[in-house]
Amino acid sequence: MTKTDSTWMAIALAEARAAAAAGEVPVGAVIVAPDGVQLASTANRVERDADPTAHAEILAIRAAAKTLGSPRLIDCDVFVTLEPCAMCAQAISLARVRRLVFAAYDPKGGGVEHGARVYQHATCHHAPDIVGGVRESEAGQMLKDFFQARRA
Amino acid sequence: MTKTDSTWMAIALAEARAAAAAGEVPVGAVIVAPDGVQLASTANRVERDADPTAHAEILAIRAAAKTLGSPRLIDCDVFVTLEPCAMCAQAISLARVRRLVFAAYDPKGGGVEHGARVYQHATCHHAPDIVGGVRESEAGQMLKDFFQARRA
Repeated sequence: MTKTDSTWMAIALAEARAAAAAGEVPVGAVIVAPDGVQLASTANRVERDADPTAHAEILAIRAAAKTLGSPRLIDCDVFVTLEPCAMCAQAISLARVRRLVFAAYDPKGGGVEHGARVYQHATCHHAPDIVGGVRESEAGQMLKDFFQARRA
Repeated sequence: MTKTDSTWMAIALAEARAAAAAGEVPVGAVIVAPDGVQLASTANRVERDADPTAHAEILAIRAAAKTLGSPRLIDCDVFVTLEPCAMCAQAISLARVRRLVFAAYDPKGGGVEHGARVYQHATCHHAPDIVGGVRESEAGQMLKDFFQARRA
C-alpha cells in the first residue's frame, strides 16, 4: 500500500524529535523512490558532525544517491519537516527531485517560499513540484519548544 | 609570507585541472584559516562520488570544519574557481566564512551575482565579503575547453 504524504512526514517528524533530544535543531527528512520504497531517513546533525552542511535534507540526498549509485534522484520525493534553506533547496534541484513536501514554513531561514526563493529564477534548471504545510503545526510546535527550552 | 588571493586561486585552479582530467566539471576550492594556513583543497567530485552535493566548495567546507572541529569557519576565507551556486553560497553563509573569492562568473548557474543572489536578501544571516574575477580568464577557459571537449 502506498503511504500518504502525511505518513511519510510522520517518519520525518520522528527523526526531528530524535534530533531535538540530541540537542540538534529538530529537522528530519525522508526520501522515497518512485516505487514507494524509502531510500533515506535522516535528521539534522550539524553540531554532532561539526559540519555546517549536515542539514537533514543534504544528509538524506547523499544517502539516497549513494544507495542508487547516481547523483540524480530521478522521480524521487523529499519529505522534510521544515521549509528548506537555499543550500538544501538548490541541492534538491541539482538532484532532480520530483516532489518536495515540507511541513513548517520558515520565514526567517527558508529559501523556497522566502528569501532566495531558489526555484523562482530563470536560471533554475530544475524545480520540483512543491507541497508546503503537511503536518505543519506538529513540526512548528516542535521547533518552538526546542528554541524556547534553549533560551530558558 | 602571506599568500595573495591570486596565489591561493592558483591552487584552486590546479584542483580544477585535476577534476577535468578525471571527467568532472572543473571547479576547485581552497579554504584558508585566519592565520594563513590552508585548511582544505578540493575539487568537484559529483560523478565520482555519485553525490549531487559534492561541489568543490561543499567538500572544502566539510573538510575544513572537520579539521577545526566546529561547524563554523570563523574568519576563514574560501577561494573557488567558479561563482558558487545557491547551494554553495548558502553553505558559505552557514559556515560564517569571512571572505569569498571566486574566479569566473557564472551567469547560468551562479547564486551570488546571478539567479538566487543568496546574500542579497534581508533574511540572509551572514554574508561574506566578496571578490569576483580573480584569475577569471584561466578559470573560464578551462570550463570552456571542458564543455567543448565533452560536446565533441
